[in-house]
Amino acid sequence: MNDFIVTPWEVSGDVDYSKLVEQFGIKLIDQNLLKIMEKISGSFHPYLQRRVFFAHRDLNWILGEYQKGNDFFLYTGRGPSGNIHLGHIMPWIFTKWLQDTFNVELWFQMTDDEKFYFKENLSLEETNQLAYENALDVIAIGFDPKKTFIFSNIDMANTLYKYAAKIAKKITFSMIRATFGLNESSNIGQIFFTSMQAVPAILKSIIEGKNVPCLIPHAVDQDPHFRIARDILPKLGYYKPASIQCIFLPGLKQQSKMSTTTGIDAIFSTDSEEAVKKKVGNAFTGGRGSAKEQKELGGDPDVCSVYKYFFMMFTLDNKELSETRNKCLNGERLCGECKSILIDKIATFLKNHQEKRDKARDLLDQYIISEKIDIKQ
Amino acid sequence: MNDFIVTPWEVSGDVDYSKLVEQFGIKLIDQNLLKIMEKISGSFHPYLQRRVFFAHRDLNWILGEYQKGNDFFLYTGRGPSGNIHLGHIMPWIFTKWLQDTFNVELWFQMTDDEKFYFKENLSLEETNQLAYENALDVIAIGFDPKKTFIFSNIDMANTLYKYAAKIAKKITFSMIRATFGLNESSNIGQIFFTSMQAVPAILKSIIEGKNVPCLIPHAVDQDPHFRIARDILPKLGYYKPASIQCIFLPGLKQQSKMSTTTGIDAIFSTDSEEAVKKKVGNAFTGGRGSAKEQKELGGDPDVCSVYKYFFMMFTLDNKELSETRNKCLNGERLCGECKSILIDKIATFLKNHQEKRDKARDLLDQYIISEKIDIKQ
Repeated sequence: MNDFIVTPWEVSGDVDYSKLVEQFGIKLIDQNLLKIMEKISGSFHPYLQRRVFFAHRDLNWILGEYQKGNDFFLYTGRGPSGNIHLGHIMPWIFTKWLQDTFNVELWFQMTDDEKFYFKENLSLEETNQLAYENALDVIAIGFDPKKTFIFSNIDMANTLYKYAAKIAKKITFSMIRATFGLNESSNIGQIFFTSMQAVPAILKSIIEGKNVPCLIPHAVDQDPHFRIARDILPKLGYYKPASIQCIFLPGLKQQSKMSTTTGIDAIFSTDSEEAVKKKVGNAFTGGRGSAKEQKELGGDPDVCSVYKYFFMMFTLDNKELSETRNKCLNGERLCGECKSILIDKIATFLKNHQEKRDKARDLLDQYIISEKIDIKQ
Repeated sequence: MNDFIVTPWEVSGDVDYSKLVEQFGIKLIDQNLLKIMEKISGSFHPYLQRRVFFAHRDLNWILGEYQKGNDFFLYTGRGPSGNIHLGHIMPWIFTKWLQDTFNVELWFQMTDDEKFYFKENLSLEETNQLAYENALDVIAIGFDPKKTFIFSNIDMANTLYKYAAKIAKKITFSMIRATFGLNESSNIGQIFFTSMQAVPAILKSIIEGKNVPCLIPHAVDQDPHFRIARDILPKLGYYKPASIQCIFLPGLKQQSKMSTTTGIDAIFSTDSEEAVKKKVGNAFTGGRGSAKEQKELGGDPDVCSVYKYFFMMFTLDNKELSETRNKCLNGERLCGECKSILIDKIATFLKNHQEKRDKARDLLDQYIISEKIDIKQ
């Protein structure tokens, strides 16, 4: 029995990623893939080197097609159930790197229907409004407005429902139960939903009237959706979507995934510097009982949430990260100093993000699509 | 155990309507309701008197509201899985009478998604095309173009999916299993579908931004959908839809519902006079072994499919029907003569219907809506 749970709707416990690889049947990103990536892109993102993006399905196929001159497109999404925190932004940073490096389109799905189905206390009006609020954070990341298409499931249902229907016809309740653990008490929106999540993986193929490879960067908990999509889409004549999957940015307490339920240990994109100071100030670290002890014995960066934030988001420079790690291990730098450095880094990041987020309100029209899409097929 | 089955997707065996009333929990239309109907409309349709429309839910409430000056609207629909036959047209004739008598709107749903989910061999493109072919038959009935709105679920998903989602959140798989007999092997489109069928019952309320009573004329097999709708819609703040339900026009052989699977004993809206002659010529009647015997002993109109066609569609005049019945019973008129009269009546009806159906192609734009509806709410 696992002492952790990872489904698209619940992540809890101390996630063992190697067990997850086995359980989900995904593949680790190996040296060979990294070399191909480096050959194509000149460099590769620290997230690959550090295995923040650690697993994949058919990434080798995507890269092979790209090398043959067949462009792929990116598809990712967001379940708009609340405000955006750093744990959401982290994979988007990598997604932007993918867009810039390969010069490809990004289709970004806001699953306002999903969050409505799964959150007892959220109305559809609320999740729909959150879709557009959250879109401001997506736009703030700096995706190419000419190649990025953001849409709400509710507002683009005219295009999506038709193809979701084709997918839904091939999926039985048994499959849903086995894949997601949904049961007889689940509502029929929850049961139907995965067919809506599958559609963007073929949207570009539908529009072009020919198959276009799709790469989905996403946090590993979403894999069950795309496992089903990979089963079904070839039966409809489309490619299996490929994926590249990341681990979760942990909270500032001891736990697996940054939590939005309390807001206490998650840093939101709209947080003030004061809030950041307070949250990082209270973070769980690998420090010792006293400063004296820590100077003698050193700290433990491997259990430290502050170090994890350096590692996963705020110290992408390898040399700097290595220095931070060593200074911790040999007792040269204490937790207070690390916290102070992290606060500065996060505050700087958020200041910039918040400026862009404010400007994004005027850019929404460039990114959002809601009208029925012109289909060649 | 019943020796008949009536679900929205299967009708077989010799339907016992009084058992169905008990099983479904619907109410018979009684003399009192007929009197109210007569008082309001001046007369009432033979379908009421003859109990072709035999059962209802909350029809008394609809009529009461109408008497108070609160207009209702009509909602009915069609599952476009093939060509239209007389069994489909029969309730539409009554629906037109309701529209004319009460001067109310009709919202007509083409469930191209449903038929795709339930018919293994039909593509979505086929059911969608059939929706518009079948719409020609609806228009040929002569509904008021200013007050009639025909739409395909697929093509109006932008409006429908949003409200279907709200309904779906309140329906569990258990409810679907208990109501429709769907199971673990059912596809998730089938499981989700009833939420799409519920939406038109509140569409007018959504558009107006205030509750408007809805009356659904339909064949009794569709009752399970509206049983669920009546459970759920009040939880969302809407009225329970009322209904007025009809029996099935039988096939020309000995069976309960006009069948489309073979086309042999169903008369289609596009049939030639030759086809009608052949089909009615081969009809099952209440005749005797020989003409001599029948002249002596009389025939049995109560088992005769030809007589049922007079009763349910082609002899709405009570005096004429009574004569036909008596002439059969006393052996004065033999089956050949009745068949010949029915052939004439059907051929005349179809000639007129087919002319109007041809003209309907140019009228589609007046009836079809597919764009997102302007919602006040």
